[in-house]
Amino acid sequence: MINGNRLNKHLDELATIGKSEDGGINRFSYTKEEKDGNELVKKYMEEAGLTVQYDAVGNLIGSKDGTEDLPTILLGSHIDTVPNGGKYDGSLGVLTAIEVIHSLKEKDKQPRHPIKVIAFKDEEGTRFGFGMIGSRAIAGTLTKDNLQITDGDGITIDRAIREYGLEKKSLHRAKLENIKLYLELHIEQGKILESKHAAVGNVTGIAGPLWLKFTLKGLAEHAGTTPMNQRQDALTGASLIIAEIEKIAKQSGSTVATVGKLAVKPNGVNVIPGEVEWTVDIRDIDEAKRDHVEKKIKQFAEKIADERKLIIEFEELQRVEPILCEESIQRVIKESICEELGEDAVSLPSGAGHDAMQFKNSFPVGMIFVRSKDGISHNPQEFSTEEDIEKAGNVLYKALVQLDED
Amino acid sequence: MINGNRLNKHLDELATIGKSEDGGINRFSYTKEEKDGNELVKKYMEEAGLTVQYDAVGNLIGSKDGTEDLPTILLGSHIDTVPNGGKYDGSLGVLTAIEVIHSLKEKDKQPRHPIKVIAFKDEEGTRFGFGMIGSRAIAGTLTKDNLQITDGDGITIDRAIREYGLEKKSLHRAKLENIKLYLELHIEQGKILESKHAAVGNVTGIAGPLWLKFTLKGLAEHAGTTPMNQRQDALTGASLIIAEIEKIAKQSGSTVATVGKLAVKPNGVNVIPGEVEWTVDIRDIDEAKRDHVEKKIKQFAEKIADERKLIIEFEELQRVEPILCEESIQRVIKESICEELGEDAVSLPSGAGHDAMQFKNSFPVGMIFVRSKDGISHNPQEFSTEEDIEKAGNVLYKALVQLDED
Repeated sequence: MINGNRLNKHLDELATIGKSEDGGINRFSYTKEEKDGNELVKKYMEEAGLTVQYDAVGNLIGSKDGTEDLPTILLGSHIDTVPNGGKYDGSLGVLTAIEVIHSLKEKDKQPRHPIKVIAFKDEEGTRFGFGMIGSRAIAGTLTKDNLQITDGDGITIDRAIREYGLEKKSLHRAKLENIKLYLELHIEQGKILESKHAAVGNVTGIAGPLWLKFTLKGLAEHAGTTPMNQRQDALTGASLIIAEIEKIAKQSGSTVATVGKLAVKPNGVNVIPGEVEWTVDIRDIDEAKRDHVEKKIKQFAEKIADERKLIIEFEELQRVEPILCEESIQRVIKESICEELGEDAVSLPSGAGHDAMQFKNSFPVGMIFVRSKDGISHNPQEFSTEEDIEKAGNVLYKALVQLDED
Repeated sequence: MINGNRLNKHLDELATIGKSEDGGINRFSYTKEEKDGNELVKKYMEEAGLTVQYDAVGNLIGSKDGTEDLPTILLGSHIDTVPNGGKYDGSLGVLTAIEVIHSLKEKDKQPRHPIKVIAFKDEEGTRFGFGMIGSRAIAGTLTKDNLQITDGDGITIDRAIREYGLEKKSLHRAKLENIKLYLELHIEQGKILESKHAAVGNVTGIAGPLWLKFTLKGLAEHAGTTPMNQRQDALTGASLIIAEIEKIAKQSGSTVATVGKLAVKPNGVNVIPGEVEWTVDIRDIDEAKRDHVEKKIKQFAEKIADERKLIIEFEELQRVEPILCEESIQRVIKESICEELGEDAVSLPSGAGHDAMQFKNSFPVGMIFVRSKDGISHNPQEFSTEEDIEKAGNVLYKALVQLDED
């Protein structure tokens, strides 16, 4: 199997690059810290016997030939972080993939399929507010217009790529063809595996986020002089809707719906709220279920607005399609988990987004999750045990070997 | 009766002082605009036969002797405004009181009681965030410490008084003794009279605001990866409480309760709210009822926090005692309204604060309200008709004559 000590050592080493005073990690795309991180990963890739190069957008790709003329198997994740992020999110997937290849080499096992291990450029979207740059490029969906998106200092992605010191290549050359499948290992960033006492889990799909903005308008009046039955209070209306959103999502059984952001106007202690604006984040790997929840929420909001003489407006901020993990890949992952852990595999959806989403219309994907302590992520407190990591690495190893044989 | 034309003309003239480009009025305490306003009011007072002077804090006081050695009757209101305020709030009460005295003089009617008409200094609290400076001084409750409160430029009330050009007098000389009662006319700033088709109303009392701050703490987690049944969402908890606050206030029959200000942390679209902080403004002229509503709200909030594994904290921002208008004064006002309008008087509480509150432990008070169009106040749209104003002036005239006879 894999060398768990080496994997955990690599994880600790990579975590020193971009380390902030707050104990978290800052590695944003096309920065010196991220380049330093990639160069360390490049060294690990080379030690694992991979031939390494950067592509047109700066994805770091380590390649290994197959013994047969077959489609390529992709492994990977990302090494960029959110501000003051943790050391597992992304990095663990890249390093585990390298470790698996390293272990195969040490055992003199030659894969039938060509294999590429990729550290995708900018999954998080921290710098440009536009993530998954690398996986979009590999899927061939990254456009020249996208490259004109700027960071907080007005620097475009295009300029950042040039200043990163990459050899100039045209964007379309980053697209990868003839791919058999993509397989990614990632921390769960949730508490489902922990609650089921499982170290590793099989991912059924990635929930696409639907982001809506609700605006509810009433009448801002004097809190002291307006009797309760003469009010058009936007906040009590909003409260009824927000409480119902939770109820509707719970009833669905799988959809999650969250009101994360809310603003009251005019927001004075003695003024009845005249307007409330809030966001709703709705996710499910089943798009029809997600859209049904959306419909029920909107219907309820309209009913409340109508009853209370308020005006409701909806705006769609983003609507990302969910992606299901390929059944055949899931089956192999579940078998590998069962073999490694000696117990039935836990399957769960991914509520968070991942690079794999970008491959929806390109090639099949599968994902393996590692238990996260307390579900904490995007935070220096992010943690998975060395034992869980080794087990997950073995699952990835077994799954890759099996998928390579199929 | 009174001269409605003269009263409305004075109201229009005073409204030109401090007029802003936005169509509203800015007359803040101890500024040139407010001084100009006071000087115009001083002229009206003198024309009405009053002897005028400024007291230690700058209250403008017009005095008339009585024919007998009796306690003084106080009339008045204020001429300072909120930012971009309307022309009726405060000013109408001062000018109507002067008009009543002017009309009495024209009819050669000598009051038995000495009468003082006061334009109170800084009722609104716009400049120093500390209102009712003048009425506090008259009640004898304004302290030297209060005078050290500063405005946005760091200028103390004490310095503002000195720079206003007043003759130096010690603070305690502003306190008035041997007062029979205080009577104030003011616009309603609400919609109760309008909804009852009444031009003028009798005020039963002034609701003291109780301001609370609620903080509800849950757990900020990933909106995508945390199942609905594993959440400690502070905002859904808050929503249930806010919806119930409305219900509890409605059930009370008279108390009004308002959540006007609310903030969510961390306030991200894809993060479950970890903390919500909001204010509750509770008012009633019946303190026991108000406090019962407070208790029921807190109990419900604790129940929700308990059920949802959230932590609730309460903080008291201010607790002002309500004041009841004197029964005997109310009776005279109601008779005067009935006589003037030819219909039963509408009685209503004041949800907004007024200078009369400062006299709670000093002498009895009464208030007369004038219908406000759409209940709008603290806004250039503030409006009462000339006809309503004339009727209200006649009510004040009749009530004063009656109270002077008692």
